[in-house]
Amino acid sequence: MSTTLRRTWLPFLNEDVPETCDTPAKVAAYELKLGCAALGIGSPKLAVEPSMGEGYAIKDDTITGGSVGILYGAYAFLSAKAAGEPVPEGTQSPFWRLRMLNSWDNADGSVERGYSGRSLWFEGGELTWDGPRIRQLGRMLASAGINVLCVNNVNVRSDAARLIEDRLPDLARLADAFRPFGVRLMVSIEFSRPLAHGVGTADPLDVKVQAWWAERANAVWAAIPDLAGFLVKADSEHRPGPFTYGRTHAEGANMLARAIAPHGGTLVWRAFVYNCQQDWRDTATDRPKAACETYAPLDGQFDENVLLQVKNGPFDFQVREPVSPTFYAMPNTNLALEVQLAQEYTGQQIDIYAMNPMWREIVADLPPRTVSAIAAVSNLGRDDNYTGHPFAAANLYGFGRFAWDPFADPEAVLRTWARLTYRLPAAQEDALVALLMNSRGVYEKYTANLGLDWMVNPHNHYGPNPLGYEFDLWGTYNRADRNAVGVDRTAAGTGYTLQYPEAMRARYEKAEDCPDNLKLFFHRLPYDYAMADGRTLIQRLYDDHFEGCAESEAMAETLASLDLPEPDKTEVRERMAKQIKNAREWRDVLNTFFHRLSGAEDAHGRKIYD
Amino acid sequence: MSTTLRRTWLPFLNEDVPETCDTPAKVAAYELKLGCAALGIGSPKLAVEPSMGEGYAIKDDTITGGSVGILYGAYAFLSAKAAGEPVPEGTQSPFWRLRMLNSWDNADGSVERGYSGRSLWFEGGELTWDGPRIRQLGRMLASAGINVLCVNNVNVRSDAARLIEDRLPDLARLADAFRPFGVRLMVSIEFSRPLAHGVGTADPLDVKVQAWWAERANAVWAAIPDLAGFLVKADSEHRPGPFTYGRTHAEGANMLARAIAPHGGTLVWRAFVYNCQQDWRDTATDRPKAACETYAPLDGQFDENVLLQVKNGPFDFQVREPVSPTFYAMPNTNLALEVQLAQEYTGQQIDIYAMNPMWREIVADLPPRTVSAIAAVSNLGRDDNYTGHPFAAANLYGFGRFAWDPFADPEAVLRTWARLTYRLPAAQEDALVALLMNSRGVYEKYTANLGLDWMVNPHNHYGPNPLGYEFDLWGTYNRADRNAVGVDRTAAGTGYTLQYPEAMRARYEKAEDCPDNLKLFFHRLPYDYAMADGRTLIQRLYDDHFEGCAESEAMAETLASLDLPEPDKTEVRERMAKQIKNAREWRDVLNTFFHRLSGAEDAHGRKIYD
Repeated sequence: MSTTLRRTWLPFLNEDVPETCDTPAKVAAYELKLGCAALGIGSPKLAVEPSMGEGYAIKDDTITGGSVGILYGAYAFLSAKAAGEPVPEGTQSPFWRLRMLNSWDNADGSVERGYSGRSLWFEGGELTWDGPRIRQLGRMLASAGINVLCVNNVNVRSDAARLIEDRLPDLARLADAFRPFGVRLMVSIEFSRPLAHGVGTADPLDVKVQAWWAERANAVWAAIPDLAGFLVKADSEHRPGPFTYGRTHAEGANMLARAIAPHGGTLVWRAFVYNCQQDWRDTATDRPKAACETYAPLDGQFDENVLLQVKNGPFDFQVREPVSPTFYAMPNTNLALEVQLAQEYTGQQIDIYAMNPMWREIVADLPPRTVSAIAAVSNLGRDDNYTGHPFAAANLYGFGRFAWDPFADPEAVLRTWARLTYRLPAAQEDALVALLMNSRGVYEKYTANLGLDWMVNPHNHYGPNPLGYEFDLWGTYNRADRNAVGVDRTAAGTGYTLQYPEAMRARYEKAEDCPDNLKLFFHRLPYDYAMADGRTLIQRLYDDHFEGCAESEAMAETLASLDLPEPDKTEVRERMAKQIKNAREWRDVLNTFFHRLSGAEDAHGRKIYD
Repeated sequence: MSTTLRRTWLPFLNEDVPETCDTPAKVAAYELKLGCAALGIGSPKLAVEPSMGEGYAIKDDTITGGSVGILYGAYAFLSAKAAGEPVPEGTQSPFWRLRMLNSWDNADGSVERGYSGRSLWFEGGELTWDGPRIRQLGRMLASAGINVLCVNNVNVRSDAARLIEDRLPDLARLADAFRPFGVRLMVSIEFSRPLAHGVGTADPLDVKVQAWWAERANAVWAAIPDLAGFLVKADSEHRPGPFTYGRTHAEGANMLARAIAPHGGTLVWRAFVYNCQQDWRDTATDRPKAACETYAPLDGQFDENVLLQVKNGPFDFQVREPVSPTFYAMPNTNLALEVQLAQEYTGQQIDIYAMNPMWREIVADLPPRTVSAIAAVSNLGRDDNYTGHPFAAANLYGFGRFAWDPFADPEAVLRTWARLTYRLPAAQEDALVALLMNSRGVYEKYTANLGLDWMVNPHNHYGPNPLGYEFDLWGTYNRADRNAVGVDRTAAGTGYTLQYPEAMRARYEKAEDCPDNLKLFFHRLPYDYAMADGRTLIQRLYDDHFEGCAESEAMAETLASLDLPEPDKTEVRERMAKQIKNAREWRDVLNTFFHRLSGAEDAHGRKIYD
């Protein structure tokens, strides 16, 4: 089996990591030997300096680093050599201490919002995996610098809840498998779990509940002393939580945090709370305001080992959202930034969508050092290439690079990924990198230009459906009528902009100042609204849809001209054909929808179906 | 268990039918004894006259009838006495020889479009049932006059395909259970089944295929000599069929018909064929035309023991459709009329929807004696009351009565059902009957007035979704824009009206002549179109939505005033609350949808949400 494993961005590491490599130092030594031989270069020495932790320095043919740092150093050295880039100078250390991957894998082997096959480590309610494959994955994570893996879905169902109970020995074995790669496990827990064990309540202020969790934490960390922590989705989309008992989320999180604090565990609490039973007739409630309203009053109340994990935008991983105001509202809370590699709303690993440029925009809008950790919803699965689309691997690699250095140039990161993965002639490499850099913009144009999110098919979230969420419970409305479209989220509207500090509010408050790409996120505008470039709003809607679709067709031509290796070339071609079909559907459905409403004809006479 | 069985419209038959009643004569005798004792009346004698078949006559305290006819006579006698109605005079015999119920039960125990619990006879891939419960069901079917039961879904999946193979002994046992009630079984088969047995093809003109089916038929009728026949859904919604082999549906049906003809079996072939991969941009294709286009050219080619089963309307059991033109196009073919008791698009046994008035309208539009049999998709399941909503039992009972005498007064049928089921004071009974008679009209007003079907949520088919099927593959479009709504199906439009004979075409061809309740089925009209009563089209849309919702609220008041027995009273109240919620959602979503498009204000200033 091992010889068939795909090596993604590490094709030169063309042998499996053997099971005998059971420490980061052994992995580092093995990889250097294997990689340098493959690359035909001399191998540097390794020197462990424990005080350096995850940091490393490469100098005079020696890689010095902490116990895990030498592993990162080894991959950095090999990657630089393989890509023909200079090795990093000086001491390197990660920007964020916790660089987390959140798998939404279910115990039954399915993956919520998974687009690359079934779970790599669950099947039939059990933890089970293929050794060589997991070690190849460990190699991938370590080479990207990812150091925490939450193994199970935040929506915890019964078999998964047993991971910290009778399934703990299996979880410990998985932790053993990833430990040599510097990857610590995390586990999603169910807030109400004491109820399943006869405690009679899950009230966080109840001493029996506190005792139950303390006892559980003792057992869990006895089995896995370096477990990173617990991840919790509470009171969100029908999950249990402290609200049941009239307690705040600080009370709920702190109770768990105190149970695991003696073991050095981190309690990651997701700030994804909103009314998912909203009446569409209710125009006073505005979902993007929900997280800030819930959490800002709790600022300063969370324990030191709590991380409040906040999605990048106030909605839910849409193509374009402003940065969540919660990041500004909680200076006295440890916050983690959550992004999503799984392309739930962004093409589902069929349509190409490289994320590093987007993440770079996000950090540019975050107050410096506001965020103390980062997490990404995984895009991994059991497909041969791990990520469904071969190019989706760029998001996994790019996330690790981003988590290590969020201010790195996104284009350079994508270029390194492309060089490592495919040794293309320079012009082809340039074309591929340009295509990736532009890919989000293309997808945005045909699906959600001007910040007009949520026009997707309900449930599966792929393909257009302009009223799909319009009369539903989820707080996601465009309110398009024959005259205008969008929701007024300014001070005069729902007041969402008031959650931002003044400078940012000023950027969005007036329609004429608001950037085009968020115009309809913040404003309700008539179809004949004059955009800064002189076009009308409706013409801009049409133009972007036509252009995005045409650009996806051009992408196919570019891709056809690249000398990609098989099976990547075939996989890319097949998925690109689906992307074009998707883009045409988006173009035509959205154009028809807005044409039926507005009656406005396309200025260029292109085909809009009746 | 038996004492908890619900008796639906036969509360006076308050004991189970014992297993020892293994012939219709024994059942008839048992029921008469039980029923007459309960009603405190003398019991008539039974006299079998085999030549009378299913017919019977009640005279001078003697019920004379055929072997099954005496059973029908016994129930007719008891029902008349229990309802305080005169016993039927003269010889009674059914209008249609085959009065069929089609269960869409899957072998795994689920029921496709089932709204009253799981299958009564399938679970876990096996045929299995509760004896007393099945005999109570047999009593219900016989008392309504239903004489054929197709046990499995027309969409045949693997375990169900085995019913005519290794599961045949189980099927024979079920046939034994129903035989004393005059009910013969039918079974849905999979056209491509020979492939699963190594035949290599399912081509109906291949002698190996013909031989395979002949051998199967021999085995099946050896086990169940009175099996009514096979039911087939072919080349429809991804089911296999003769098109795969370039054969016509006549060739496919006749091949099967010839295999079962020696055993007296009937081959029922569903005429539900259309392009379920239509591009919404394609305005030339019009789904209602599909069945007639496929089958009319085959008229006269089907064997004598083939029944072509045609749905009442050209779409699929919508609230309001014209009669399918296929009924007019095939004078030389044996046709069966298919209706649907399962309220897939008509309230799902939550919303009240009594069907007899609708069926009466349908037969009024059918050429006399065009149809030689009738089938109804079942609304039965394992719920205590068999039909989810207690009033949905009226549709099962009413279907049997309709199949026996399609020209009977629907109000009289519903009144008899109400009298038998609930012995209400006269004013209450009048109120209940009026409510039932009006129930379809209420549902139509808030969901699909003016013939505007298909604005439902995709997949589950409950609740409003005005664009739910608009950009989809199913050929079901309203094409509403800011000026107009509907599809022009006249000679100047898609030409659908040309499929009707001239008199009927004249009824629909011109918008001003077309009945209001089908206006938007046949025509595309502007919102300011002047209806005959002087209202605009848009005002009529609004008015009906408001009125339908208000009428559903009034229904709740009426129901609250009835002295219904428990648990019916609670079940009815709970479902009525859901119906009102549904009606409000329909009213508001459709009003908002059309208000956003048209910009027209309600003439009466009622609330339409933005």
